[in-house]
Amino acid sequence: MRTFSVELGPHSHSVHVGAGLLDQLGRLAREAGISPGRAAIVTDRNVAPLYGERAKDSIAKAGFAVATIEIPAGEASKTFATYELVIDAMVEARLDRQSPVFALGGGVVGDLAGFAASSYMRGIPIVQVPTSVVGQVDSALGGKTGIDHRRAKNLIGAFYQPRLIVADIATLSSLPEREFREGLAEAIKYGAIMDAPMFAAIENDLPAILSRDPAKLEELVDRSLRCKAAVVSRDEREGDLRKILNFGHTVGHAIEAAGDYARYLHGEAVAIGMAVASRLSCLHAGLAESDQRRLVRLIERAGLPTEMPDLANLPAAEQERFANALKLDKKRAGEAIDFVLVPELGRAIVKKLSFEQVTAAIQSA
Amino acid sequence: MRTFSVELGPHSHSVHVGAGLLDQLGRLAREAGISPGRAAIVTDRNVAPLYGERAKDSIAKAGFAVATIEIPAGEASKTFATYELVIDAMVEARLDRQSPVFALGGGVVGDLAGFAASSYMRGIPIVQVPTSVVGQVDSALGGKTGIDHRRAKNLIGAFYQPRLIVADIATLSSLPEREFREGLAEAIKYGAIMDAPMFAAIENDLPAILSRDPAKLEELVDRSLRCKAAVVSRDEREGDLRKILNFGHTVGHAIEAAGDYARYLHGEAVAIGMAVASRLSCLHAGLAESDQRRLVRLIERAGLPTEMPDLANLPAAEQERFANALKLDKKRAGEAIDFVLVPELGRAIVKKLSFEQVTAAIQSA
Repeated sequence: MRTFSVELGPHSHSVHVGAGLLDQLGRLAREAGISPGRAAIVTDRNVAPLYGERAKDSIAKAGFAVATIEIPAGEASKTFATYELVIDAMVEARLDRQSPVFALGGGVVGDLAGFAASSYMRGIPIVQVPTSVVGQVDSALGGKTGIDHRRAKNLIGAFYQPRLIVADIATLSSLPEREFREGLAEAIKYGAIMDAPMFAAIENDLPAILSRDPAKLEELVDRSLRCKAAVVSRDEREGDLRKILNFGHTVGHAIEAAGDYARYLHGEAVAIGMAVASRLSCLHAGLAESDQRRLVRLIERAGLPTEMPDLANLPAAEQERFANALKLDKKRAGEAIDFVLVPELGRAIVKKLSFEQVTAAIQSA
Repeated sequence: MRTFSVELGPHSHSVHVGAGLLDQLGRLAREAGISPGRAAIVTDRNVAPLYGERAKDSIAKAGFAVATIEIPAGEASKTFATYELVIDAMVEARLDRQSPVFALGGGVVGDLAGFAASSYMRGIPIVQVPTSVVGQVDSALGGKTGIDHRRAKNLIGAFYQPRLIVADIATLSSLPEREFREGLAEAIKYGAIMDAPMFAAIENDLPAILSRDPAKLEELVDRSLRCKAAVVSRDEREGDLRKILNFGHTVGHAIEAAGDYARYLHGEAVAIGMAVASRLSCLHAGLAESDQRRLVRLIERAGLPTEMPDLANLPAAEQERFANALKLDKKRAGEAIDFVLVPELGRAIVKKLSFEQVTAAIQSA
């Protein structure tokens, strides 16, 4: 097990990464200062049959009375309606102000359960227990929680830090191949924006990572989360510094929106977005062509897409959704887009680009 | 105009109290560092015809493009459904991360608009513009926002500090008598729990206050908010210190719940709750009988109730709601109730009382 602390003043908390940690959930929660009493697990219908009972047993053994709240799997659960159902179930379980909620699942469960915990009695403890690669290398850390609005992803939510993060890398072994690979996009992102040695290590270890070698996965998750922790510690609520975490995400979000969140997984859209951002980095931040090719090649070796969908041949409705998502992107302030570029692998900057500069790079792809 | 600052570290903000401040809203918002751009006013259908246009003109003159979002008046608007409608309207108005929301109205508008602003794009600026006595002497300050759940009031919400509070005491002149008097309960509370000279001043000035003398109202609002600011500055998120603000509220909430929030206004229920709490203070905190009578007499002179409803003769459903509300009170941790008592006028303590001790005092009333 690897353990480190995310330094966030009064919101500081521990992160544990290792194989088999599900069986230690209850003990780790107690060590994090959570008092025994009522508790809830929020999980989805894919994860519950695999890990629900083990998590529940471990939490119960530590002295908690545990209710399990199941939601349907998938992004479609990040709605007002499911949020309301989760709150209802928390009331039904008679959670009080001290009761922890364990978010057991991927990014959707973490985002939704986190927002529910942030708003139940104006905030009860949330323990993030990510079981997907995206969750473990990225989204479980940083306190971003939320649900989607039909007009924009993650439009509603809160900044709300977890009390504890427990990443059991053994849960990654059950993931379908496509979902496993999706998550690698965010790990590659951390190498590209802030950790050149990590980027080189992923290049080197990729075959072992793809074969899900536990030691390499533990290293990948630990190193990615430490990168993110370094950024979030210095910028808890998305000021300028934290914006670098959006590398690949501006165009990625627009690609997801164009396909109505059905054609690409989030990590796949981010992978394409990083490829576009790398080309913009050559044009506007002096990234060497050879490094741009290294980045695109690593994304491809991870089995992720790098080619933009052929916008001109998409149905008009999809083209419009793409353009609107770029314009309506919640990072927008005024008409320029804050775009994350990498002047070299391992370092990122934020630069204001016009909507036209961005679309030109997309169309020339 | 009286102005002071609420010291909350990065969440510090100004408070302005005075007659006619609605016409200076836009200028005051700019001075508080809010950049011109899109903005929204959230208000209700009672307040909009009285003050909506003036507020809008003032904000527009300062360079904002203002949308007005109207909700039905009354506690029934503090629901998931109205919250969702407000968020929809904020999306429709294309608010971005810098856009301020002005909560123009009473406690319901402030709570609902505050929660919507806290969760829109994970938090946009909220300016509280209370137009009721409760709002001006109490609820606009402190960052408590939220909506009701059918099982408990204010069960869902966030701690989210306003960027600015503007209390135009001229708006109090249009209040119906019952709503005006309701709000005095909270002002009396501040005197009772932490400011003996203020308590004496209210005793002295009550006739002028009841005739809505502007100078006396300005003093009352300013002094109440300074009391609350002193508590909130030392305890932003309701640790032990802030609990003293719940004086009269534990039983008050149960009374409201018993009547299904229809029989008593919030301040009326709190008034009765303070009377019960004062009797418990004699029994368990050594409050002098003479001071207990002073408190009850001031509440009565303000035109507020002090007598418990006759529980034994209420319908069984109401009795059950009363008992459940006391037990389910969200301040409950374990089985004892954290009860706020006043050992003397101007000083409060929190003491754990059993459910039975509380109900015994209620029944002997």
